[in-house]
Amino acid sequence: MAENRIAIIGTGLIGASIGLGLAARPNRNYEIVGVDRDRTHARAAKKLGALDREVGSLEEAVERAGMVIIATPVVAARRILEDVGRYLVPGAVVTDVCSTKAEVMRWAAEYLPENVHFVGGHPMAGREKSGPEAASASLFEGATWAVTPSPRADERAVQAVLGLIEALGAIPLYIDPAEHDQYAAAVSHVPLLASVALFRMVRDSQGWEDAALLAGPGFRDVTRLASGDPTMARDIMLTNREAVIHWIGRLQQELSTIRAALEAGPEPIYDLFKSTQLDRDTFIQNPPQRRRPEGIEPPSARDAIGRMFVGGLYDRIKETTERLPTAPRDDADLKRKLGIEDDRL
Amino acid sequence: MAENRIAIIGTGLIGASIGLGLAARPNRNYEIVGVDRDRTHARAAKKLGALDREVGSLEEAVERAGMVIIATPVVAARRILEDVGRYLVPGAVVTDVCSTKAEVMRWAAEYLPENVHFVGGHPMAGREKSGPEAASASLFEGATWAVTPSPRADERAVQAVLGLIEALGAIPLYIDPAEHDQYAAAVSHVPLLASVALFRMVRDSQGWEDAALLAGPGFRDVTRLASGDPTMARDIMLTNREAVIHWIGRLQQELSTIRAALEAGPEPIYDLFKSTQLDRDTFIQNPPQRRRPEGIEPPSARDAIGRMFVGGLYDRIKETTERLPTAPRDDADLKRKLGIEDDRL
Repeated sequence: MAENRIAIIGTGLIGASIGLGLAARPNRNYEIVGVDRDRTHARAAKKLGALDREVGSLEEAVERAGMVIIATPVVAARRILEDVGRYLVPGAVVTDVCSTKAEVMRWAAEYLPENVHFVGGHPMAGREKSGPEAASASLFEGATWAVTPSPRADERAVQAVLGLIEALGAIPLYIDPAEHDQYAAAVSHVPLLASVALFRMVRDSQGWEDAALLAGPGFRDVTRLASGDPTMARDIMLTNREAVIHWIGRLQQELSTIRAALEAGPEPIYDLFKSTQLDRDTFIQNPPQRRRPEGIEPPSARDAIGRMFVGGLYDRIKETTERLPTAPRDDADLKRKLGIEDDRL
Repeated sequence: MAENRIAIIGTGLIGASIGLGLAARPNRNYEIVGVDRDRTHARAAKKLGALDREVGSLEEAVERAGMVIIATPVVAARRILEDVGRYLVPGAVVTDVCSTKAEVMRWAAEYLPENVHFVGGHPMAGREKSGPEAASASLFEGATWAVTPSPRADERAVQAVLGLIEALGAIPLYIDPAEHDQYAAAVSHVPLLASVALFRMVRDSQGWEDAALLAGPGFRDVTRLASGDPTMARDIMLTNREAVIHWIGRLQQELSTIRAALEAGPEPIYDLFKSTQLDRDTFIQNPPQRRRPEGIEPPSARDAIGRMFVGGLYDRIKETTERLPTAPRDDADLKRKLGIEDDRL
């Protein structure tokens, strides 16, 4: 039987930040349990108040948990999805926070039992530092959080994950997993590689020691992502290899375009800088908004995480799970295709 | 006859920040006069307290000024160096804050009269925003400030510029102008181009509107430099074209190296990320230090800007100027070559 328990698998920066955000909610009616392969991480997260309890095994963490949040690098998430099924109660809602989504959705479909609900997720937030010590309850405030429900996830399981996201102050965005990975390659994964490339380019040059003396805050900022966790970076690139390679090529082309403008003279290079500045200023001042079905404003799902346990949401998810071997696929597929939020939420 | 006057030509972000820093010094004994081609900038700088007086012409700004600071984009600095000589008093110290140095040094040698002292400069500091409204007295705190004295600059003129730099809380670094431009291309100019290229790559893609929804703080940070002033960017690239084109090629090579590691499999790409992370962490935790001649600690030049006028430093510069048609070249050349600070300062 499920208890009012949320399990966090992986208590690094993201997992511990989720724990801190959930622990800070007033009148909460759930227990937060955490596990990490590196137990010092789980203990640190517990000490920071991100967990009520830290345990030594995946089984202990997820047993009787109504919601399981996988917050590890992508390749470790695969092993967890392979193993976790045997310990889950029927109707459990499983989500993740991995940086790539298509492979994760594939593994979830392959490994998880049919009576649990997988809803993929990816918060567009992070910090230079990793580990629980860098965690913050406000890490996700205002951040976009991509949501990729599996076709067999019940609507109410999706609602529970939306509740989690909104409880942390983030803004959910429905997106197709393949589209997510294409766009994430462009706005996140290749910028990370550019940061790594810029640092290596200078570091490997003969003039490094002299160049480093001149390197100001601009160079530190632009190479910040090169200090990120190498395991996470490797996993991202390996599980999104095709898209990343495509966008590396596009970046090289853009650099060639800029070089050509520079060789062409003052006007072409000025026009290029000026139009880019205008476009970026527009993007910063009027960022694109999520599309919603016209005229329909969905009620806030902010309280769904609390209701999950008190209001019997978990029991209803479980009931549906037992009634229907799979949730209706068409609705979810269509919704993901259109990239819209469901108006019933 | 020279008065206790410092003239700032160009009162944008950098010029106004210098003015604010100089105006904030206790018991200061100099007047700060500013001029800008866009007079609303000069008026804004005056209103912010960065200037004691704003004037409408170059001539009014520099007449009888002991020190002139050129704080414009590089190409505008050329026109100012062409024009300003006729208005300067003998012995005046002229410096600049332009992002490239070899061309500026060439123009100064060509256009300035022999009886004024040019000491090139470049503070490694800036902000996304431009204009006097973005100015701050603390902009240069802890920043490296490259110093490239002209061969005919008197030692005491160099001392006055070092005093200016230290008064603003920055750390002077002697460097050869050509070396400065090579390294600045690597740590500053090509990172700016990478930022522009990353933004254009995503902005010009068909999926821009969807990709923009996913773009988080990481994308905003990494494309921040693309919002900089396009005139300044153009001038930097045009006056440092050869070095910039060289480093664009190096960046493209690094991207190809990363792609090859990604195609080679999990271990090569992990090793690449891991070694880059270690190198960058070392750079951040133990940044390289300026080399000093062993055993010699130069006394602080922090008060030279104040002494410039009260202590008769200006008169001594002027006297030397009148005695010697050019300052000894060998000493200055050697010093620049070795990249060391002069032990007499």
